[in-house]
Amino acid sequence: MTFFELLANRINSIGSILCIGLDPDPTRLPPHLQDEDLPLWSFNRRIIDATHSYAAAYKPNAAYYEHPDGWDSLVETIAYAHGKGVPVILDAKRADIGNTAHQYAKLLDMADAITANPYMGIDSLSPFLSRHSAGVFILCRTSNPGGSDLQNLKLSSGMHLYEHVALLANSWNEQGNVGLVVGATNPDELQRVRNLTPDLPFLVPGIGAQKGDTESAAKYCLCSSNAGLVSASRSIIFAGEGDNFDKSAAEAAKRARNLLNQFLK
Amino acid sequence: MTFFELLANRINSIGSILCIGLDPDPTRLPPHLQDEDLPLWSFNRRIIDATHSYAAAYKPNAAYYEHPDGWDSLVETIAYAHGKGVPVILDAKRADIGNTAHQYAKLLDMADAITANPYMGIDSLSPFLSRHSAGVFILCRTSNPGGSDLQNLKLSSGMHLYEHVALLANSWNEQGNVGLVVGATNPDELQRVRNLTPDLPFLVPGIGAQKGDTESAAKYCLCSSNAGLVSASRSIIFAGEGDNFDKSAAEAAKRARNLLNQFLK
Repeated sequence: MTFFELLANRINSIGSILCIGLDPDPTRLPPHLQDEDLPLWSFNRRIIDATHSYAAAYKPNAAYYEHPDGWDSLVETIAYAHGKGVPVILDAKRADIGNTAHQYAKLLDMADAITANPYMGIDSLSPFLSRHSAGVFILCRTSNPGGSDLQNLKLSSGMHLYEHVALLANSWNEQGNVGLVVGATNPDELQRVRNLTPDLPFLVPGIGAQKGDTESAAKYCLCSSNAGLVSASRSIIFAGEGDNFDKSAAEAAKRARNLLNQFLK
Repeated sequence: MTFFELLANRINSIGSILCIGLDPDPTRLPPHLQDEDLPLWSFNRRIIDATHSYAAAYKPNAAYYEHPDGWDSLVETIAYAHGKGVPVILDAKRADIGNTAHQYAKLLDMADAITANPYMGIDSLSPFLSRHSAGVFILCRTSNPGGSDLQNLKLSSGMHLYEHVALLANSWNEQGNVGLVVGATNPDELQRVRNLTPDLPFLVPGIGAQKGDTESAAKYCLCSSNAGLVSASRSIIFAGEGDNFDKSAAEAAKRARNLLNQFLK
């Protein structure tokens, strides 16, 4: 089974396209967790316990785990999410040349899918893509203000770079395991990429703290085979503070799921 | 002192522009090191002991350290290189949106410089760039075959994407801490980027195992203020096998330094 088949099943069975970003900024963790052996893991475990029934997927961002205790926390977090039946996308935005990309591809021994950067071209991504059962979300049009610096450059063909990247990614989808990262902050562009690549699942960040267009995100994230995700991180995991932070996160996740489902109807 | 001033001093004092990539592929480590507590660190320590007098800088690639023991090895490796007076560039090719990029920028608490990917634009790089004393090598024209997929696209302005990225990077160099990664596999393009950005130090990979043009690499890597590096990894650290792997590495590093210096004259 490919990752996107697994994801479509999960979306269907729990009725949610919500992807919860596990970005445990150490400066925002509840103080009472700071004394634990692995504070990130303690935090994530309680978030997962509280939110897993609303989560089509979890998406830990690798940036928060890049220290020795961090990797231990990441390994525990992914295993725990799997124990709850939730697939995990490692938001790593990696890419490198051949032998090094093969090394990065080992991240897919633990996660089910990864985000990847297209700037170095196909051979920097092929070690990810050659894993038939793993998903690879390629950055296309990102939700940050500077995303336009390169992605909106006009090519001599008349296309923008992000449109060209969408078509390239589509041509790389030989194994049915390519998706795209397309932000929710510019709905017109989101729609354009959807029209260009009807068969590619989108991972759409930018709702929640980044205030993207939730309706467009819900409307365009799903591909022809019903796989796709809308992602929120800080607005869910840091919805509350103190000892009941997990209850606040659960409420925020439920609200986000319901809002997205409302736009899907 | 900026990173590039530090680097120019180091280059001048030891007479070398060689950057040694510490990419300890676990499948190629000498078998007798596999039983050590931290095999990567044991390997790197012996490589550093043997090669530091030829190394203008070391460049560990983060891909090889992305597991709990790996990060411990990376921390030890960087501290040990610093103890020998050698600056360290973390080859991470990172970039992410605002708050996450700030998290990645903490990697510069341990390394002196980093490589970064421009696809997400200026705000994904600014947490790196705002560190006045750190160096940021932005991917421009990479040495891998797929590098041309995006980087050689023709823009409506008539420029190629990699040339546009070079000029953008130049415009982001407000603190004097921006460099470029430009591969040695296409000397014409290397020369073109040098002409466009005379003041930016280059990190030039692609000699050694990738068989790029060593003469062009040496000729164009240095900027107007005499900072720049030519990098080799596998051809040096895996030059020999067995118990004397470090001696072989030292000989390979010496040869590479001498060859580069010959072209500098």
